[in-house]
Amino acid sequence: MYQLTIPITENGESLYAQIYEYIKAEIRNGHIPADTKLPSTRRLSEGMGVSRSTVQLAYDQLCDEGYLTAKPYRGYFAARVDELAFFSWEQGKGQTEAGDVRNAEEGKAAGESIPPDTGKGWDFSLSGADLSHFPFNTWRRLVREVFSDETGDVLRKGTAQGEERLRTIISEYLRQSRGVYCGPEQVVIGAGNEYLLMLLNQILGGPVRVAMEEVTYTQAARVLRGIGDEVVPVRMDGQGMCAAGLERAGARLAYVMPSHQFPTGIVMPVARRIELLSWAGGADAYLIEDDYDSEFRYRGRPIPALKSLDRKERVIYIGTFSRAIAPAIRISYMVLPHELLSRYRKVCGFYACTAPRADQQVLASFMEGGYFERHLNRMRAIYKNRHDCLLQALSPLSERFAISGENAGVHLVLQDREGREEEELTALARREGVRVYGIQSFCLVPKREREQDWKGTVLLGFAGLSEAEIKEGAGRLCKAWLH
Amino acid sequence: MYQLTIPITENGESLYAQIYEYIKAEIRNGHIPADTKLPSTRRLSEGMGVSRSTVQLAYDQLCDEGYLTAKPYRGYFAARVDELAFFSWEQGKGQTEAGDVRNAEEGKAAGESIPPDTGKGWDFSLSGADLSHFPFNTWRRLVREVFSDETGDVLRKGTAQGEERLRTIISEYLRQSRGVYCGPEQVVIGAGNEYLLMLLNQILGGPVRVAMEEVTYTQAARVLRGIGDEVVPVRMDGQGMCAAGLERAGARLAYVMPSHQFPTGIVMPVARRIELLSWAGGADAYLIEDDYDSEFRYRGRPIPALKSLDRKERVIYIGTFSRAIAPAIRISYMVLPHELLSRYRKVCGFYACTAPRADQQVLASFMEGGYFERHLNRMRAIYKNRHDCLLQALSPLSERFAISGENAGVHLVLQDREGREEEELTALARREGVRVYGIQSFCLVPKREREQDWKGTVLLGFAGLSEAEIKEGAGRLCKAWLH
Repeated sequence: MYQLTIPITENGESLYAQIYEYIKAEIRNGHIPADTKLPSTRRLSEGMGVSRSTVQLAYDQLCDEGYLTAKPYRGYFAARVDELAFFSWEQGKGQTEAGDVRNAEEGKAAGESIPPDTGKGWDFSLSGADLSHFPFNTWRRLVREVFSDETGDVLRKGTAQGEERLRTIISEYLRQSRGVYCGPEQVVIGAGNEYLLMLLNQILGGPVRVAMEEVTYTQAARVLRGIGDEVVPVRMDGQGMCAAGLERAGARLAYVMPSHQFPTGIVMPVARRIELLSWAGGADAYLIEDDYDSEFRYRGRPIPALKSLDRKERVIYIGTFSRAIAPAIRISYMVLPHELLSRYRKVCGFYACTAPRADQQVLASFMEGGYFERHLNRMRAIYKNRHDCLLQALSPLSERFAISGENAGVHLVLQDREGREEEELTALARREGVRVYGIQSFCLVPKREREQDWKGTVLLGFAGLSEAEIKEGAGRLCKAWLH
Repeated sequence: MYQLTIPITENGESLYAQIYEYIKAEIRNGHIPADTKLPSTRRLSEGMGVSRSTVQLAYDQLCDEGYLTAKPYRGYFAARVDELAFFSWEQGKGQTEAGDVRNAEEGKAAGESIPPDTGKGWDFSLSGADLSHFPFNTWRRLVREVFSDETGDVLRKGTAQGEERLRTIISEYLRQSRGVYCGPEQVVIGAGNEYLLMLLNQILGGPVRVAMEEVTYTQAARVLRGIGDEVVPVRMDGQGMCAAGLERAGARLAYVMPSHQFPTGIVMPVARRIELLSWAGGADAYLIEDDYDSEFRYRGRPIPALKSLDRKERVIYIGTFSRAIAPAIRISYMVLPHELLSRYRKVCGFYACTAPRADQQVLASFMEGGYFERHLNRMRAIYKNRHDCLLQALSPLSERFAISGENAGVHLVLQDREGREEEELTALARREGVRVYGIQSFCLVPKREREQDWKGTVLLGFAGLSEAEIKEGAGRLCKAWLH
């Protein structure tokens, strides 16, 4: 049991906020080690001479954001710090802290204001998202603030590359959370990844040969083909794309998702990353790093982006806010190596930015005010619970199926060890009212040509389902598949 | 002098609003013919037994929106109805009228809230815009309304083609104001014309040969070339693109601006339009109609769009709100012929819409509430005054220069009859602190190869300057060029 001595000052902040901030800071800086048991709310309230409900409010908030874990009948335990999103914005520090506490209440109100999707049955959809925890009231307030600017600048033509303020905070976010060092001048904002891929094509001077893993994010493959690129499938093994295959492919670009490959969930080890970088350096080629869901990682330290190892400037990093915030936020960004940056200015500098200025400013305020970090931690805690719940509920299947892709992202990968085809598995599931998704539609080459055949493999997305729905759906899957 | 008998009822509307609505309706339906003199404010107020300031407020509003013209020492005269924007939305009719009056006040307040750009010297920039009359308060209110929707739908993934509600009202707007009959299902929304051209390229199945006029909107040429298209300059005469040249060019697409060619200001006559349509039908080609500033026409009836003559579905109509509303509104749209629509669904249907849902909904409310029509009429009245003011102030140059491109758009075209080069003209202007723009940078082919050489031709944009600035700038140009 950890002894807490919380200094309370008359600085105008509420008791609740002071307790919350103190414990959060102590967990962050490691003074309260992971898995340490905290005093009970009764004990802390008696020791401090404050009401128990004040302490309870602070603990609830800390649980909500993933700093504490509540274990029934056992108490409150400190979370692992290396599993939390850290992102703070120095220039707006005062604002951040005030914002934090305000948001604590607004976040809850918003939780009630956006109803979760219902009536979906048990659909383990891969594009599901839970918006019911999004701090919609805060977002609304920031929208109002941006539009209350009396200069009307928000209606005037903006910078082609995107708002300087947003590019600055994105570069700071990438430094802190992804180990990527880049200047705001390297960041290009656009209305979605698809648009950025179209821009990139023009920066690279027209259609190129792009290598993608045999099993991959086929949406990107469709976009690249639509632009006119030739997509070459490249062998992959348990570590992701094989560098040897890349050399044979004669590609000028390779599209990878090293932090959490979609759909296989493979995390690319450092050695493989270095092989890919070395290929790119030697072949005068570029790697596109699509870091689409790097925010959601449940065990162990966040793995720095491939871009963080990129000494020779061969990596084009692409990130999006559609997943971390909401699908309708049409703001993505890419970080360009300097060589491509000058080409961008030359051949695409005259394009107006496709993301509206107002939206960019609202997002910048959201990040500067500390709301983004809090939202990420909250969603991480929620998705981790769903992830753990799904793993637990699928445990009766663990002998019959290989379960992988855990630890990150918002879906799991199940492969039938007894070789049933995915069509059979999805049909059996459907008969029980459950939807799961076969991996075949994410494969660029026919089964017989693949290194790993991924026979009988299905994907289960859990972001759009409640824990109750997950339990029920997984129970039905056990019934459907174990006979 | 027209005799006005205005029925006043106790329907809850203010006296001011009833007078305004009555006179507006009488001018619209032709009961008050163009150029008719209206009773003075004193006479009308005495006749009606209302205060003079109430009548004055209604007259001011009618002048502001272009229904009346105030002539010093002479009185108020009815405007030509065929020069006004008409657009009403039946479904929201009640809302429209209420909205109209509310906006009358908000519009004024907004006029004070967005300061005009200052300190620009005398820059007859072609990309200038006057935002100081934009009903920013109304826009803000609509933004708040869209974000007050508690379902959070505005954050959920929207329809790839754009919000149904916005596409519906755009198709209605096109019918009423441009004579274009199309269903909402033919309208595709995107974040700017440039993005739509990229989509179109994919719909057409990759790089094509595009015909453009020798002197044209070079920004579009850069985009098309960036995508990989081959841009073929085609001969133009005083009526725009020559159909004969088109046949020789072997193009599959032709890019035209029939309502008001940029930068020459040529309005394409109907006979030429029919020639182009006939070429497209015979050559299995398409015409892109960029109707970029069709909203601003000062004399005569608005000319229906080329698309309105398109019996064989060969025209792709592209429109934007960047000019009619504000440069930062990143919403454009295209109307696809049915053949291209099915290709769009097949090859591009999986792209998420690049314009955010919230922005699309705000724009739809703006149009449904009648604010768009009012804003257009207000801006038309303002730009018409600037246009007339510039023409007047340039009259000392009328012997030495051919002045054209009047009647529409927001710039004039001046050609030196004595053959001085544009570089000399722009340099002389610069010495007086005035910026004007030579036409050469809008030419796709060298001077000696052009049908019309456009020697010594400069462009003067007037949208971004006040009448005082226009007078002063034009006076300095007279001094610079008449020596």
